[in-house]
Amino acid sequence: MEPVNARFSGDVPVVDAVEAASFVGTNATMAVSGFGSVGYPKAVPREIRDAAEDYGLTVISGGSLGAEIDTDLVEAGAIDRRFPYQAQAASRNAINDGRIHFHDRHVSPLADEVAFGQYGTVDVAVVEAVAVGPDWLVPSTALGPTPAYVAAAERLIVEVNEAQPLGLQALHDVYRPSSPPHRDPIPLTDPGGRIGGAKIRFEPEKLAAVVRTEAPDSPYEFRDPTGPDLSIADNLVEFLYAELERNPVLAESVALQFGVGSLGNALMGAFESVDFGDRDVVYFGEVMQDGLLDMLDAGNLEAASAASLALSTEGQERLFDDIDRYKESVVLRPSDISNSPELIRRFGVVAVNSGLEVDVYGHVNSTHLNGSHVVNGIGGSGDFIRNAHLSVVTLQSTAAGGDISRIVPMVPHVDHTEHDVSIVVTEQGVADLRGLDPRERAETLVEHCAHPEYRPDLRAYLDRAAATGGHIPHDLETALSWHADR
Amino acid sequence: MEPVNARFSGDVPVVDAVEAASFVGTNATMAVSGFGSVGYPKAVPREIRDAAEDYGLTVISGGSLGAEIDTDLVEAGAIDRRFPYQAQAASRNAINDGRIHFHDRHVSPLADEVAFGQYGTVDVAVVEAVAVGPDWLVPSTALGPTPAYVAAAERLIVEVNEAQPLGLQALHDVYRPSSPPHRDPIPLTDPGGRIGGAKIRFEPEKLAAVVRTEAPDSPYEFRDPTGPDLSIADNLVEFLYAELERNPVLAESVALQFGVGSLGNALMGAFESVDFGDRDVVYFGEVMQDGLLDMLDAGNLEAASAASLALSTEGQERLFDDIDRYKESVVLRPSDISNSPELIRRFGVVAVNSGLEVDVYGHVNSTHLNGSHVVNGIGGSGDFIRNAHLSVVTLQSTAAGGDISRIVPMVPHVDHTEHDVSIVVTEQGVADLRGLDPRERAETLVEHCAHPEYRPDLRAYLDRAAATGGHIPHDLETALSWHADR
Repeated sequence: MEPVNARFSGDVPVVDAVEAASFVGTNATMAVSGFGSVGYPKAVPREIRDAAEDYGLTVISGGSLGAEIDTDLVEAGAIDRRFPYQAQAASRNAINDGRIHFHDRHVSPLADEVAFGQYGTVDVAVVEAVAVGPDWLVPSTALGPTPAYVAAAERLIVEVNEAQPLGLQALHDVYRPSSPPHRDPIPLTDPGGRIGGAKIRFEPEKLAAVVRTEAPDSPYEFRDPTGPDLSIADNLVEFLYAELERNPVLAESVALQFGVGSLGNALMGAFESVDFGDRDVVYFGEVMQDGLLDMLDAGNLEAASAASLALSTEGQERLFDDIDRYKESVVLRPSDISNSPELIRRFGVVAVNSGLEVDVYGHVNSTHLNGSHVVNGIGGSGDFIRNAHLSVVTLQSTAAGGDISRIVPMVPHVDHTEHDVSIVVTEQGVADLRGLDPRERAETLVEHCAHPEYRPDLRAYLDRAAATGGHIPHDLETALSWHADR
Repeated sequence: MEPVNARFSGDVPVVDAVEAASFVGTNATMAVSGFGSVGYPKAVPREIRDAAEDYGLTVISGGSLGAEIDTDLVEAGAIDRRFPYQAQAASRNAINDGRIHFHDRHVSPLADEVAFGQYGTVDVAVVEAVAVGPDWLVPSTALGPTPAYVAAAERLIVEVNEAQPLGLQALHDVYRPSSPPHRDPIPLTDPGGRIGGAKIRFEPEKLAAVVRTEAPDSPYEFRDPTGPDLSIADNLVEFLYAELERNPVLAESVALQFGVGSLGNALMGAFESVDFGDRDVVYFGEVMQDGLLDMLDAGNLEAASAASLALSTEGQERLFDDIDRYKESVVLRPSDISNSPELIRRFGVVAVNSGLEVDVYGHVNSTHLNGSHVVNGIGGSGDFIRNAHLSVVTLQSTAAGGDISRIVPMVPHVDHTEHDVSIVVTEQGVADLRGLDPRERAETLVEHCAHPEYRPDLRAYLDRAAATGGHIPHDLETALSWHADR
């Protein structure tokens, strides 16, 4: 395919952001690009904010967005409904206060659901790109579900961000699956392989407006790894070394995935020094974080596949400065491909994700504090935890400076069930739950993962629950008392 | 492929059941054929029972088994550990009493997990067949995970059941996926298509013993549809008619799945008279139940694909008597194919499953009474509920003659999360949860699905919970009180 050398090709309707924003009507359903807090549109949202109308928008993204949408538009009262994930305090508070309707959905099915009208008509898609033509665009730092959103939308607004390098085109692998029931198998047979091209195609009559911007992403900021982060990494690495010895699926190669966040980033960083022998190691995940650049640079990773460059500002610069080298090993995919159950199973992914808390039987709450207050949303964690060959959940054993145990009798919200979680790792140790019954799971989780200070109380709960009997003994009178008392 | 005309081909070690059973050592891990309470071995288990040794077996099946294993071997104290599903009172009681260790796992990943040693060495596979040769067998009434179990086992015992027709070979489509990370896409592109053959192949040195039997299956018995069953069916059909009008994925064809059980069977029966227009309708599910034969005979179904002929005795006779006709439209697949996330998504399946109870926010408990006492296990419900294009959960709004509401403030065990369930149907009506936030979900679930007698108490709970605030308001002090008071 010919490389794209110009920001604008052919006859495209370049207008200013005010005019572009006029194509977003009040009460519109607006699908936007953006995933991992990068690659989202900035200029049109800014005009919507300034218009001071009562917009009543439904905003559908792929993953988390930056402040221009999930803070500024929220504070302007422009958003009525929001799918499927967010990570800004303003939107979080509005959702928990009931001011924004929020539907918390897995990443992998969302593209199809939007494309097939499961959430109604998509009036407009607003997409950040690095280049545009009359019937195509090249996305910027996130691919996410954008191909599906562009296909679903009645109108399309493209923000060409000239601060993002045109070289990003070399990373994209745009592939839109055909429609069920005559869907073809996804032809990807190598985690780092390519089955598409750089461009998202669309019907030219959809293109309502093109806007120039130079606004930077407001990406994640990661804290430096803490002592517990490093202990979790040590425990994880020790487990992995043992597993490499005994697991036939990992004999020749290892496909890794890490959840987004500071802990995930710290774990990726720690893997820089893991000796995988002569195995090929690849990353097949949802987001690229800085730690993966370290692994690539250390020669410890053959390829990295994700839906978003969720890098820090420094990480983006590092990638952009050396994009001709990184393009050999970095692939950006649509999020229904990066998170596809079909592919996660095909590649036998070892998935490492985090949770807010885990109960003694292995159920994981990764979204709702005290069962009620959403933090970010489930994101893609369920896609990986359910479909991974080995599903590892990592978390610190306590929160609030040790005042709260994250290993609890019963989680008040379940995102990942006992049927899905194989390994739990805290800074205390590793619980390998494979093939264990619930009583055995509880024993190993308390012994190896709970903080020693909370083990006696957890055992007292299990003793009380044993009186009820059953396969998963619970004392329902006190099962949630650790949370109710907070 | 040449049809198999003889029960025994070539040089196979036919022995009596006593000798065969001697190849199952004490403390062995024994993987068995059988799914949907049919197609499981009977002669060898009977000898194990009679041996009166303290066997300490780990028994791994695909799905539910008959009385010869899950009643008789349990009562003989021969089973120490059991994966992943059971449906007999004796095993259920032993599991809930803590006498048998039980690991409750999804159907779709289990074949791989056993094949790749995630539950240790499989010492012996005991498989019911209709025919056997030196390096192959033709399974009987269930295919299930048998291909993987045969591949994993160190030794193989085959029970050739001469009471099952040789004609069953025409139904089987044996396909064993290659190993990750170099797994090929599953090449099935049509729900009723074929990608394999009738035979499970194995290394000839594995074959330790072949036994003749004529023992019938002890399959499910279904109750006649009740009034509420029929009302649920009416509500489901009404919803489906509306959905057929508006859903582009269902414009040309519909792939259906129904959960196993009396309600599922009643729903299948009710679909006999649904007018799907000129759409092709296929069944892509886990088990064949009698209701599907009705749909096939009514000309309302093009094809039926499943892992087991979980028919009543009468249903088995009906199929066996007319197997040359049914073989044109019935396909039996391995359970990692019938339940494959890859295929369920590819075909855009409309999945209809049941639950024990649903909470006001749409979380489903399908396995554990009062959160502690297992009924059967999750089986394949999670494979379908998670991956279906449309995921419908059906249940009666009350239990115990109306004394218990099945719509509750909070389920004490979650098998299917709010992130997975789209539609809930009771005899009261339909709640379409797509795109709704939790507060909206609660409103529609209480209004349309709860029994009128319980609506005031559910609304009182929601009012109390609203004081806590949050995205999913809960009052943790009383969230489980409906269960704790039972």
